[in-house]
Amino acid sequence: MSPSTTLFAGIFRRNSVRRFISTHSRPALSSIEYPLSHPIYTIWAANTSLGKTLVSAGLSASFLSSAHRKFLYLKPVQTGFPEDSDSRFVYNKYSEFFSQNRPEFSVFASNHVLKASVSASEAVSVGGFEIERDKDVSCGNGVVNLGLYEESKLQGSENWEMKGFSKLVCKTMYGWKEALSPHLVAERENARVEDDELLGMLKGCLGSESESEKGEILCVIETAGGVASPGPSGSLQCDLYRPFRFPAVLVGDGRLGGISGTISAYESLTLRGYDVVAVIFEDHGLVNEGPLSSYLRRRVPVLVLPPIPKEMSNNLMEWFQEALSTFHSLEEIMQSDFLERTSRLHNMPRKAHDIFWWPFTQHKLVPEENVTVIDSRCGENFAVHKVNNNVDLITQQFDACASWWTQGPDATLQVSLWFQIELARDMGYATARYGHVMFPENVYEPALECAELLLEGVGKGWASRVYFSDNGSTAIEIALKMALRKFLFDHKIVSDDLVAKNAESRVDLKVLALRGSYHGDTLGAMEAQAPSPYTGFYQQPWYKGRGHFLDPPTVAMRDGVWKLSLPQEIETLKPSLEDLTFSLRENIFKESRDTSNLADIYHSYIWKTLQLIIDSSGSTRTGALIIEPGKTLTYAQQCGYLQLFAVIQGAGGMEMVDPLFQRVLVKECRNQKIPVIFDEVFTGFWRLGAESATEFIRCKPDIACFAKLMTGGIVPLAVTLASEAVFEAFVGDSKLQALLHGHSYTAHAVGCTAAVKSIKWFKDSKTNHNLISEAMLLRELWDLDMVRQISLLPAVHRVVVLGTLCALELQAEGSNAGYASLYARSLLQKLREDGIYMRPLGNVIYLMCGPCTSPQSCSNLLNKVYSRLEEL
Amino acid sequence: MSPSTTLFAGIFRRNSVRRFISTHSRPALSSIEYPLSHPIYTIWAANTSLGKTLVSAGLSASFLSSAHRKFLYLKPVQTGFPEDSDSRFVYNKYSEFFSQNRPEFSVFASNHVLKASVSASEAVSVGGFEIERDKDVSCGNGVVNLGLYEESKLQGSENWEMKGFSKLVCKTMYGWKEALSPHLVAERENARVEDDELLGMLKGCLGSESESEKGEILCVIETAGGVASPGPSGSLQCDLYRPFRFPAVLVGDGRLGGISGTISAYESLTLRGYDVVAVIFEDHGLVNEGPLSSYLRRRVPVLVLPPIPKEMSNNLMEWFQEALSTFHSLEEIMQSDFLERTSRLHNMPRKAHDIFWWPFTQHKLVPEENVTVIDSRCGENFAVHKVNNNVDLITQQFDACASWWTQGPDATLQVSLWFQIELARDMGYATARYGHVMFPENVYEPALECAELLLEGVGKGWASRVYFSDNGSTAIEIALKMALRKFLFDHKIVSDDLVAKNAESRVDLKVLALRGSYHGDTLGAMEAQAPSPYTGFYQQPWYKGRGHFLDPPTVAMRDGVWKLSLPQEIETLKPSLEDLTFSLRENIFKESRDTSNLADIYHSYIWKTLQLIIDSSGSTRTGALIIEPGKTLTYAQQCGYLQLFAVIQGAGGMEMVDPLFQRVLVKECRNQKIPVIFDEVFTGFWRLGAESATEFIRCKPDIACFAKLMTGGIVPLAVTLASEAVFEAFVGDSKLQALLHGHSYTAHAVGCTAAVKSIKWFKDSKTNHNLISEAMLLRELWDLDMVRQISLLPAVHRVVVLGTLCALELQAEGSNAGYASLYARSLLQKLREDGIYMRPLGNVIYLMCGPCTSPQSCSNLLNKVYSRLEEL
Repeated sequence: MSPSTTLFAGIFRRNSVRRFISTHSRPALSSIEYPLSHPIYTIWAANTSLGKTLVSAGLSASFLSSAHRKFLYLKPVQTGFPEDSDSRFVYNKYSEFFSQNRPEFSVFASNHVLKASVSASEAVSVGGFEIERDKDVSCGNGVVNLGLYEESKLQGSENWEMKGFSKLVCKTMYGWKEALSPHLVAERENARVEDDELLGMLKGCLGSESESEKGEILCVIETAGGVASPGPSGSLQCDLYRPFRFPAVLVGDGRLGGISGTISAYESLTLRGYDVVAVIFEDHGLVNEGPLSSYLRRRVPVLVLPPIPKEMSNNLMEWFQEALSTFHSLEEIMQSDFLERTSRLHNMPRKAHDIFWWPFTQHKLVPEENVTVIDSRCGENFAVHKVNNNVDLITQQFDACASWWTQGPDATLQVSLWFQIELARDMGYATARYGHVMFPENVYEPALECAELLLEGVGKGWASRVYFSDNGSTAIEIALKMALRKFLFDHKIVSDDLVAKNAESRVDLKVLALRGSYHGDTLGAMEAQAPSPYTGFYQQPWYKGRGHFLDPPTVAMRDGVWKLSLPQEIETLKPSLEDLTFSLRENIFKESRDTSNLADIYHSYIWKTLQLIIDSSGSTRTGALIIEPGKTLTYAQQCGYLQLFAVIQGAGGMEMVDPLFQRVLVKECRNQKIPVIFDEVFTGFWRLGAESATEFIRCKPDIACFAKLMTGGIVPLAVTLASEAVFEAFVGDSKLQALLHGHSYTAHAVGCTAAVKSIKWFKDSKTNHNLISEAMLLRELWDLDMVRQISLLPAVHRVVVLGTLCALELQAEGSNAGYASLYARSLLQKLREDGIYMRPLGNVIYLMCGPCTSPQSCSNLLNKVYSRLEEL
Repeated sequence: MSPSTTLFAGIFRRNSVRRFISTHSRPALSSIEYPLSHPIYTIWAANTSLGKTLVSAGLSASFLSSAHRKFLYLKPVQTGFPEDSDSRFVYNKYSEFFSQNRPEFSVFASNHVLKASVSASEAVSVGGFEIERDKDVSCGNGVVNLGLYEESKLQGSENWEMKGFSKLVCKTMYGWKEALSPHLVAERENARVEDDELLGMLKGCLGSESESEKGEILCVIETAGGVASPGPSGSLQCDLYRPFRFPAVLVGDGRLGGISGTISAYESLTLRGYDVVAVIFEDHGLVNEGPLSSYLRRRVPVLVLPPIPKEMSNNLMEWFQEALSTFHSLEEIMQSDFLERTSRLHNMPRKAHDIFWWPFTQHKLVPEENVTVIDSRCGENFAVHKVNNNVDLITQQFDACASWWTQGPDATLQVSLWFQIELARDMGYATARYGHVMFPENVYEPALECAELLLEGVGKGWASRVYFSDNGSTAIEIALKMALRKFLFDHKIVSDDLVAKNAESRVDLKVLALRGSYHGDTLGAMEAQAPSPYTGFYQQPWYKGRGHFLDPPTVAMRDGVWKLSLPQEIETLKPSLEDLTFSLRENIFKESRDTSNLADIYHSYIWKTLQLIIDSSGSTRTGALIIEPGKTLTYAQQCGYLQLFAVIQGAGGMEMVDPLFQRVLVKECRNQKIPVIFDEVFTGFWRLGAESATEFIRCKPDIACFAKLMTGGIVPLAVTLASEAVFEAFVGDSKLQALLHGHSYTAHAVGCTAAVKSIKWFKDSKTNHNLISEAMLLRELWDLDMVRQISLLPAVHRVVVLGTLCALELQAEGSNAGYASLYARSLLQKLREDGIYMRPLGNVIYLMCGPCTSPQSCSNLLNKVYSRLEEL
């Protein structure tokens, strides 16, 4: 809103005018960070011309009512410039208001226009002559540093040394000439500004203006047009400003139809995770506040401004006087909401410490000050609350543990292409359309579409049935029930009398699994892992360990070369040395290895082991094989678990199982009619660079489990896929033959909707720019040269990179693992200061990104890690 | 939009005018149902005056381009009437368009205004004289049956008998005089129309106009103002029409600021579960279609209409001609989208049948035609796709199994007070703000607020720690791990060497549980239930049954009286007869029963059993008690399970465990330092009428599990609450002492947000009208007289009603249970036709509503059930 039609040039006569070289030239957003020492609000509106600038000006009048205060007004995007200049309007109106009221204290007021399009800058004339412009320091695209600056000292009725003074700082960041939508004028004036650049400049303005100020500060950032009006890059403004997630004041619409527009605008802000603290609008006599308050159920205050005179007599001064009490109320709401927010943020660590019971966490080892307060997520990044030298900040950390390997969103701000925001809309839609509905014997779109996508994708070529559950652990329990029944059928151990228990005495069913594997925390899933600290009597008194556990050969990069490590039993079979190292990672996955001498050695080792099981106990049968195909980490690396493992056993288990070994194993189990389960809870959906990790071992299972990334990292959902042959072992005349396992929210619509969105998003090259469509693989996300460099560092023992994962094992001096653990922890502490959130992992650290994360982001992470490792 | 300013009276001169007694007087919405034999669309707009009516008129011109077609235009809410009448505008414009183009076929056109406010009706004058009005059949509140009707035969160039004819039917349902928002004029003209009445009328219009038509039909319903403009009751229109969930055409805004308004309007529709099939708007030269298409990522077509002439020369006929191709495109999109939707609905049962693997379902017993296609949920109701006599329908069924007991939403449409819609907004917000973030050692608002609410609510007075997981089963596994560790500590069985397994040989830990209880499907949870068909070798070969299982006394209403049934062992102890019947249900829960003879008998039975366990095996210890406090159903009644149980054992187990027995049991376990677990997965959050079922047994646990209703019925989330003493058994210097159990999405923000919303919603009397605040109990939802009547029916054996549950056991002749099972199934089939979705349950059936469901809805259900039971 800019009622002023005076030419901008006018200002140069009234006040001291000087050129001002911007300190903000060529800013780029490296990461989001802003002070929480004072309130910063964004002023949004339901439509254009609803009075955002009047509200900003009113707030300046309300706030600057005593000395030692600073009101910072920022207008990032101004079109119609210089005729329209909202920052100048605020500057002028406050100045007029001040003159009329003449308080005791003084005010230093300034207005500053930092950059403009060439067209807009050319239209700025000072008393008829053109002002100089830094065309040479153009930030590209026809944007120039303008540096128009005006200031004035508003003298109060008393000497400022007696009563002190306040400051009004008004800034326009970018101006364009035409009075149209920013995305249009940016294009027409060849003066496009990228989102990162704009946010970088905003961050700069906020930072520079809050430094070394003692008094109170209030900052408002005024958007342009409506909440979802495009910014100069074309990104919707509500998306554009989302990384900061400043709380919002919404200027509503008091006209006919205004209730609808205001509510919809509120919902668009909500759908992007903004907190709206107040709605304010001009009265048009339609009592729109009634339905609005009712809709907001009085949780968000609705304020009404007096009608704005059509005739701008008295230059709106009477109106400002009349509206002042409303602006006071608004300011009070903004202040108290800010205090509430910061006070809550301060108290959260203590409260969390007092009432949470975190999983895999020894509470005694987590002092209150180590608790991380996460304000929000934006793509791959957390916004974290921190107190540095008594200054409150919101700062950004890359979620490099992918929040227990679940995360898929990326933070690339592109025109209308932002995974998290689209997911938010879909989550809202699914809740409104379905909530959750009963699954058995029913069908509804999200469950069906999800099942179809799974069978066309990760289950392609073998799976024909989809069994839904809630998490990896339940998916594994279901898979085991499926496999064991299938085994009983195939081996004719099943009897007609399904209730009878006599078969139990006939056969003791076990699973074949790899030592060090981990399939979940419920008892059934635990039974499929080898004894470990997690299975001890004091953790799970009921654990027996119903498996035979093979020691697998593993592979990792050491000193720049990929090398196999073999378990003792295989090593004694003396494989040829050329089978044990690989110059390129892809050679590890080649099927040509099937004819190697090592393949024979693997086969005889596996065959002998299986024979041994049968021989050693007549009644024991191996009812299933369960492996994690292409798994790069043994159980010890499961985020929480690894630390523990490292502490106890003195070694991180950052190892990739040799895919050849897994392939030989699967083939031999097939021969012996042992159903094969792939646990793809971790590996599924591009975690390792392919949609399914079966790509890496090049063979198919009978049953497979998926979870984690399946919903894109939003809500729990798991599936167990099965072949038709497995399904048929449960089909019969009796209900008792059916698989009697299910959870309340089986195939919940919200989760299935997220899964549908995510599965499609990750495998569409229009949305996932990492996808090499022909190969259905992700491009290399980690700079392999840099990885090799890292593997050569003395501090590094081994490295594994594959897909979204880059894991490093640090050199740990034998039994000094306990020490090593602390050693990595201090490294990770430094990396957190660099803006990378990693979990402490003993002497192993890992970086994990999402399937859509740009290689640039990954390089950025690697660089920071490299620097810190070099320091060691 | 109504460019016409001609007085309505004009129409009476041109055409035959007659009074038309509405057949829709006093309609009330009993349930949603509408035909899917032809497309029905709602026309929405981003704001007022964007041309909805022009789009409707354009569609009529596009569609009525050949014979044997019918275009139905409905305007439910018209303000500014009679000056403004959109139905008359469509009627007139089509007529003019027809005359200009004069096709070969003829058209019968009519316009009908059914009801109006008294003020509006008085303004209708026919050539200067007042028309009659049915003030006597007023539907109250100053609304009268108006029945204004005009029709005309538009003669084509050929004889209609040769070329046939089409129909244009335009209807205004309600007119108000003032040209303001409906909620305002309805109030000012004392002519409020309730939502149900309006929807009932709409249903009537849709039904009556689609009957016995042979040709093609296209129906559009035009809303008033913007998407979120209030309707006559004050409900936002996007909420008001939600029960029908007709697909939408959104008329956007091509002006400056129009991108924002259009996107926000789209998002408001999406947040209510509508499918928007196209966006269309008038060109204002700003190329708004660019950003809109980009935002919609080309999944929703964006169409642009030529600029509407300011001078309405040529009566817009030239404009309609120019825009006709765009209207053809729009119509084509609407037609093809409709075909796609219906074809998908038809194919869904087959596809589901082919690729789903439903839990607890013997697929052989579910023919394709038995698969229910759920189009959406609206509060407690499913919208279900059905084919009746070859006619496609969307019809409504009350979700009387609460989708496996998870559901909380109710469908009460009140001004801005609709749980599902608010949840949808919150789900969107939580996804946009957090997605999911890592939990251990971190804190974020939804998890913290959820934990605080739990400790202030269901955990009040005993719990101090919250452990999050995903579902009831995982919550139980965690609870068992907590309890057993606590037992080991309290009884000093724990050793310092936590990894050592030697303790295992020292002690075999069991749980004490009630026979017939069921705590989940993962192995650990299964171990806590007595042997049953679900634990058989072919279901779960690893099940051992690690419990001692007590037979509990149960209580139910028979022939109008509450009666106890005692297990054999207790019966032999000869309790006094007066202890065994209760005239009132509340007497069962009275603490005064503690001093009864029966309490002593219970105690000695329990004490002896516990002694026996210790005596019989020295190394066996009872490490935990697990019960479902106040549980009304034994495991057999778990929806899926009951059917099975009924089939096998010949009896539904619809029994309420005697709360006195549970109380005595808990006290004795406390005495013996056996940790007490309450499984409140089913009973928690008002299921039985109190927030926690501890209200009923009046004692507190050490550990308790919650899930299902906790998120209001949207997404899976579970918690295990624990006392500080339990927590302390896990605190120490070693990580190994920590509880090593967790799932990827632990404390996911979306679920916690849903839980926060739901917990607050259910316990706030402003949102839950069933709440008796002082008592923190729900009022009686089921009409107890009716329940008593039902218990007296010869077909009924027993009844239990408590909180949101009403369960009936039908008379089953001893071993005829198999027969009885089919017998209930046919009853349930009839009830589905009555609009009640229940799961087949052998000889037990139950109705389950949500905590906010109105007693009126419950009575409606009971009445239908009573009628069907009487028929038996």
